[in-house]
Amino acid sequence: MKRLPPLLTSQYEQILRRGLEEDLGIAGDLTTDAIVDGARTVKGRIVARQSGRLAGIRVATDAFGLLESTIRISDVIEDGVDVQPDDCLARVEGSARAILSAERVALNVLGRMSGIATATNSIVEAIRHTEARVVCTRKTLPGLRVLEKYAVRAGGGSNHRFGLYDAVLIKDNHISIAGGVREAVLRVRDALGHLVCVEVEVDTLEQLAEVMELGVDAVLLDNMDVDTLRDAVTLIDGRAIAEASGGITPTTASAIAETGVDLLSVGWITHSAPALDVALDIDEDSRKR
Amino acid sequence: MKRLPPLLTSQYEQILRRGLEEDLGIAGDLTTDAIVDGARTVKGRIVARQSGRLAGIRVATDAFGLLESTIRISDVIEDGVDVQPDDCLARVEGSARAILSAERVALNVLGRMSGIATATNSIVEAIRHTEARVVCTRKTLPGLRVLEKYAVRAGGGSNHRFGLYDAVLIKDNHISIAGGVREAVLRVRDALGHLVCVEVEVDTLEQLAEVMELGVDAVLLDNMDVDTLRDAVTLIDGRAIAEASGGITPTTASAIAETGVDLLSVGWITHSAPALDVALDIDEDSRKR
Amino acid sequence: MKRLPPLLTSQYEQILRRGLEEDLGIAGDLTTDAIVDGARTVKGRIVARQSGRLAGIRVATDAFGLLESTIRISDVIEDGVDVQPDDCLARVEGSARAILSAERVALNVLGRMSGIATATNSIVEAIRHTEARVVCTRKTLPGLRVLEKYAVRAGGGSNHRFGLYDAVLIKDNHISIAGGVREAVLRVRDALGHLVCVEVEVDTLEQLAEVMELGVDAVLLDNMDVDTLRDAVTLIDGRAIAEASGGITPTTASAIAETGVDLLSVGWITHSAPALDVALDIDEDSRKR
Amino acid sequence: MKRLPPLLTSQYEQILRRGLEEDLGIAGDLTTDAIVDGARTVKGRIVARQSGRLAGIRVATDAFGLLESTIRISDVIEDGVDVQPDDCLARVEGSARAILSAERVALNVLGRMSGIATATNSIVEAIRHTEARVVCTRKTLPGLRVLEKYAVRAGGGSNHRFGLYDAVLIKDNHISIAGGVREAVLRVRDALGHLVCVEVEVDTLEQLAEVMELGVDAVLLDNMDVDTLRDAVTLIDGRAIAEASGGITPTTASAIAETGVDLLSVGWITHSAPALDVALDIDEDSRKR
Amino acid sequence: MKRLPPLLTSQYEQILRRGLEEDLGIAGDLTTDAIVDGARTVKGRIVARQSGRLAGIRVATDAFGLLESTIRISDVIEDGVDVQPDDCLARVEGSARAILSAERVALNVLGRMSGIATATNSIVEAIRHTEARVVCTRKTLPGLRVLEKYAVRAGGGSNHRFGLYDAVLIKDNHISIAGGVREAVLRVRDALGHLVCVEVEVDTLEQLAEVMELGVDAVLLDNMDVDTLRDAVTLIDGRAIAEASGGITPTTASAIAETGVDLLSVGWITHSAPALDVALDIDEDSRKR
Amino acid sequence: MKRLPPLLTSQYEQILRRGLEEDLGIAGDLTTDAIVDGARTVKGRIVARQSGRLAGIRVATDAFGLLESTIRISDVIEDGVDVQPDDCLARVEGSARAILSAERVALNVLGRMSGIATATNSIVEAIRHTEARVVCTRKTLPGLRVLEKYAVRAGGGSNHRFGLYDAVLIKDNHISIAGGVREAVLRVRDALGHLVCVEVEVDTLEQLAEVMELGVDAVLLDNMDVDTLRDAVTLIDGRAIAEASGGITPTTASAIAETGVDLLSVGWITHSAPALDVALDIDEDSRKR
Repeated sequence: MKRLPPLLTSQYEQILRRGLEEDLGIAGDLTTDAIVDGARTVKGRIVARQSGRLAGIRVATDAFGLLESTIRISDVIEDGVDVQPDDCLARVEGSARAILSAERVALNVLGRMSGIATATNSIVEAIRHTEARVVCTRKTLPGLRVLEKYAVRAGGGSNHRFGLYDAVLIKDNHISIAGGVREAVLRVRDALGHLVCVEVEVDTLEQLAEVMELGVDAVLLDNMDVDTLRDAVTLIDGRAIAEASGGITPTTASAIAETGVDLLSVGWITHSAPALDVALDIDEDSRKR
Repeated sequence: MKRLPPLLTSQYEQILRRGLEEDLGIAGDLTTDAIVDGARTVKGRIVARQSGRLAGIRVATDAFGLLESTIRISDVIEDGVDVQPDDCLARVEGSARAILSAERVALNVLGRMSGIATATNSIVEAIRHTEARVVCTRKTLPGLRVLEKYAVRAGGGSNHRFGLYDAVLIKDNHISIAGGVREAVLRVRDALGHLVCVEVEVDTLEQLAEVMELGVDAVLLDNMDVDTLRDAVTLIDGRAIAEASGGITPTTASAIAETGVDLLSVGWITHSAPALDVALDIDEDSRKR
Repeated sequence: MKRLPPLLTSQYEQILRRGLEEDLGIAGDLTTDAIVDGARTVKGRIVARQSGRLAGIRVATDAFGLLESTIRISDVIEDGVDVQPDDCLARVEGSARAILSAERVALNVLGRMSGIATATNSIVEAIRHTEARVVCTRKTLPGLRVLEKYAVRAGGGSNHRFGLYDAVLIKDNHISIAGGVREAVLRVRDALGHLVCVEVEVDTLEQLAEVMELGVDAVLLDNMDVDTLRDAVTLIDGRAIAEASGGITPTTASAIAETGVDLLSVGWITHSAPALDVALDIDEDSRKR
Repeated sequence: MKRLPPLLTSQYEQILRRGLEEDLGIAGDLTTDAIVDGARTVKGRIVARQSGRLAGIRVATDAFGLLESTIRISDVIEDGVDVQPDDCLARVEGSARAILSAERVALNVLGRMSGIATATNSIVEAIRHTEARVVCTRKTLPGLRVLEKYAVRAGGGSNHRFGLYDAVLIKDNHISIAGGVREAVLRVRDALGHLVCVEVEVDTLEQLAEVMELGVDAVLLDNMDVDTLRDAVTLIDGRAIAEASGGITPTTASAIAETGVDLLSVGWITHSAPALDVALDIDEDSRKR
Repeated sequence: MKRLPPLLTSQYEQILRRGLEEDLGIAGDLTTDAIVDGARTVKGRIVARQSGRLAGIRVATDAFGLLESTIRISDVIEDGVDVQPDDCLARVEGSARAILSAERVALNVLGRMSGIATATNSIVEAIRHTEARVVCTRKTLPGLRVLEKYAVRAGGGSNHRFGLYDAVLIKDNHISIAGGVREAVLRVRDALGHLVCVEVEVDTLEQLAEVMELGVDAVLLDNMDVDTLRDAVTLIDGRAIAEASGGITPTTASAIAETGVDLLSVGWITHSAPALDVALDIDEDSRKR
Repeated sequence: MKRLPPLLTSQYEQILRRGLEEDLGIAGDLTTDAIVDGARTVKGRIVARQSGRLAGIRVATDAFGLLESTIRISDVIEDGVDVQPDDCLARVEGSARAILSAERVALNVLGRMSGIATATNSIVEAIRHTEARVVCTRKTLPGLRVLEKYAVRAGGGSNHRFGLYDAVLIKDNHISIAGGVREAVLRVRDALGHLVCVEVEVDTLEQLAEVMELGVDAVLLDNMDVDTLRDAVTLIDGRAIAEASGGITPTTASAIAETGVDLLSVGWITHSAPALDVALDIDEDSRKR
């Protein structure tokens, strides 16, 4: 597994706070507050109910600490690991009230992130016999991009642009408005700093040929069939990074990767990944005592 | 279709702002800013690329106005309608720069919300021959619950609790900690106001029998097979709302609904709904001129 | 005294921060900063100057910690206790600068919350010989509802709705717009989930009779005299919760409660409760040394 | 009546937004949304139910516009005017849904602010035969000071410090810690800019005599009886502003003002003012149509 | 002059709001509120008092509109233009109260941004006879980077990285920790996406030679004297972008640019640019009337 | 050196957070995250590269702790001290990743604050042979005033108004609109509390004479030459504080101070102070190990 530097707490703390505020409102957890004494403690384990790729376990367990700083988290599995049903992902111990009240927020985040990591990894595995890499898109949910991009990395994929601000991707609308791809690339070169990469989206080999004369860093080969992709790779001939995009799924990924493209850009791994089933089990002992 | 009161702008404006800030950063849309003149205008159409149930079109189109107040939105289809590939969902006209820069945030929201509405509706259709209703859970993403709960309504479903604060749901952990379901219900009754409903989760018919003596508003029949559910409905005999939960999907929903339960609680419609494929098409004329 | 689960810090921390920012501005505490050395420590006691019901002591003392995390709080009396003049409610020890600068915010919160608890308790005591309970309203101040609702509980009262979002209360305007109470109730039933309670406000026995046929959870008997209330209770006959409202004060509460209503809804305990007089006494020794 | 410059919207908009969010949550106004069609409009009038001094009518009516920008407000009475029961304070017209959903927030703000203005004015009237003025304190609620200080002005009072940041008030704790009032005043003079006024709190005539030698701008005569106050005024002899404080109410104000002090500092007008009773009446015609 | 796409309002609105809140507090503009009637209007002109390069005029004039939406702004000069003393930069007309209260915030922003543009342009002019371009650094003030980076562009400069997130710059500390520049570059290549550029900082020609074998996009030649820079350019020979940095000022820039480097990285233009002197003149007529 | 009470963390924490968010975005520090292991620790020293007056060292070092709470800060020099090149200002030890990622934000704040302190002190030194004091203006950057005003104090200067809210300064526009200085002062006296000081700006001796009859606290002598200033001081004769303003720099300050004015108001020390050159040196040992 590649190195996976953990997120900084400051990168996601507001997300957790929003989740907790949303779930607790100003009235709080009516059920737990009415039933569970404030001094009562329990022990629990976050467990997988399905096999998949773990992502977000540190993020998820931080939700408990935001409700009650004395909660202890231990035995935390690393993100990026493949887990099996009933695997213990982390142990949680402390205030029963805080653990029950933060449970859903923690699990929602963990299920989503691990779902994305698992989906990403399914494509990564499908193309493991090739040199190609999986990259994600900007098809993420508002306010959650930092977590979703990280989950892609935990799944073995790489990140494409984080936003509109960190690289140039010239698409058909830009080209039409500029009056041609050459003019579009020139305007970008003139306007931007020396550390900004430029990628251009093309639909046909004719467009690709025109773009290759302009010396861009990468080309996005959009919705091409496998034969056209193969011709495109030949035409590019290593002079730019070749990225295939458009409706890529675990089923279609292998054939596309075998065309020799460098990257598979996959929206599906973020916008449509099913959640991984995870749960919080309270130890029988600790809840009965 | 049931009445679907629109959301208030104040309920989602911050979500859109977060999405736009996340995508634009402080450097902005490098590509568009370099290529497209600030005075340039275009016309575009938001279109469906798949058939499904629409949700969030007003939310999505508001993203454009947050970048540039002079953008005009027209011909907006109502949320809750079933759409077909190539259907125009709304027209957008105005600053090319703002339209291209806000496009992804708008589509991300619309694809997610319509994906949830479509998933919800697939269950609603599967059980149309019964009296049962589909309800969602708290398995939503942090900061987005207001949109996801609304999308469930657009799909023909109903909402369960919005959070821990608006109703009581006594689960196994609460019961164990209280030392029994009777004690748990008593504590809730003692603590809470007269407008708070009480639901109890049960796994077995024995538990159900005990709960029915306590006069609660609803029971959550968790992970019971179809035969047990049917017995549970008989046992309840209309004295409480009967809600089935646990791994319900379009495939299993029909048989479960036919047991006579009042509600099917389905986490899948929010935590694992694939996005609906939607796009922004800029009119050929308007981008070439 | 009933159980009174403490608030979570996250439920009120922003309120304290707003209070501190409002009082300190960007220039800070001119007087204290000019006079008191940063290293100087003192010991103080928060004391009651009046008898009344305590609420908010943990909230109040947290204000000191937000200015300076090393402040030590000890000997904290429980909320919900009746206090007498000169009772020590909590001890504060640490940075003199932080203690003096946060004092007013702490006392303002404590005085307000204890004032509400005291007012609430005066009504609770007045009707102790009946079965009726005191409930509050939504007549609270913007941004402070969580504290004010909690103070009502500390005073021995119960909470009505926390907002427009957690229960239905159909009032005269809703009925007129719907074209009748039956139509209003039907629309609500059709639109809302199974865990939402429904209450209807009525002014006359005729309206009450009509409402009772609709099977609602509670009726709000608005501004009825004592005789009419008694007739209403008879008419309701236990089929719904009977809640009296309108101008209830410590003077009038007893007669109203004796009519047999279940609840007395009292706006006065939040919108017009006088503050309880509380103060911070710095120990003579510690300030002279 | 003195000039009363209106508040800027930016000074209170966040307060209203907090109030609306608190009341609507993410689920919104369940009752109104279920019953009232989004296109339905009504006309209403904000009316007084009690006589008193008006404050906050512009603030209150802005609450409606924050929910729905097309609401029209008209016939707004000026803040600072004395109103009678049934006086129309402003007319509201537009979306029924927005008007009903924002009503409580608007009335809560208006009732509180007018309550403070009315309480203030009761003291102002009680001392009209003297030269003394009424000033408020920092005994206000967190996040609401801007509204409460304004309401004091609408009631005919003046504002004391807005916070710890805009003037110096040396109290007993500061004096003890500094080791004497002379040292305290010297430290302040040394530390602070030329536009900062200095007031010192004294409990006895001995302290007052010492302070008068130091040339301060004002002295706070704390909890002195009327005879002592009269002696204090004589001793001060116009060399500093004389401000009386401590338990001043409408009953005691007159005798205190007659001692010749310049100012009466009254915490009661903010911390314990009962709300003024105000309501929103929807026009019969407009709700039945 | 190069194209200078204007900033989006959403990119700086919070900055202006912070400035206004900081200047107005909750008490507001004491002087103006006491003296100027709310209905009074005036006309004014924002003028230059010094010659320099304009940046931020739209940002600055938006400050008035945030206080009072009816303010009219007209005759706005474009950013990026060279202005002379007494040049009118924009006209402002409307509420006297809002114009006087927002004046300082508007001028502070405009003076700062134009100061940076002017400083940048002084370097740009000094090296106009060469091919080299001026780029800024991350030496900007917290919360203001978006404005300061824009001002550099208005001054004719280009932007380097906007933050740590949009490109890689490997510095001496990274190299030491990695155990060598080769290892550092390899780790970056392995970890990052295909649209991330890589620049390496070098102090000596030996280091440069090692880096050139690794195929990076750019090299930062730190604190080299002019002769060494010339040798470095020869060694690089067009295979990477050559960027000089370290203590560059208008005096030293020319000689450095003549070495043939592509870029001059200048911290001075942001961290030490003196403000441009700008003012708001109220028309004599409009203030006397 | 005068006492310099430290700022409260709550007064600047948001500024640091904004700086860190601005620099890290959601993608984080690409370079450091790719190269430096999360467990790696280093030791470093913040050092001066120039001589000057230190301000903001505690603020700056807090930036590290906001990224990673286990960072240890030690050997911190006091603000207000004069430092020499290579002086160690503070030691930093802990997570290499956090130290490298927060470095620029810390240095940007420290360089700016120390730059202002140094500029201020240059004026203070220039007028040390007189009784005059240096005061700053409201010419500060949005969101940073608290730091800039503090830096002035660290430089030996005093603060003028913190905002429009804490003192009155009547300028030419106010006078024109009021119809004369007498009317302006009267309106202010009538409107404002007893703890608000009043200063009036005058351009000529005639205006000054008129103002002196009104008994104000201070006069701002704007843009007067040295001879006129001397006459103004004579005319004022100790009856008000005399403050000179307009284009004061280290060169002109001495002659102006020698006229006998009490205060020199200097915008230059905030709006145009060059940054002090500061750096973070990582110990050779700690980075190689």
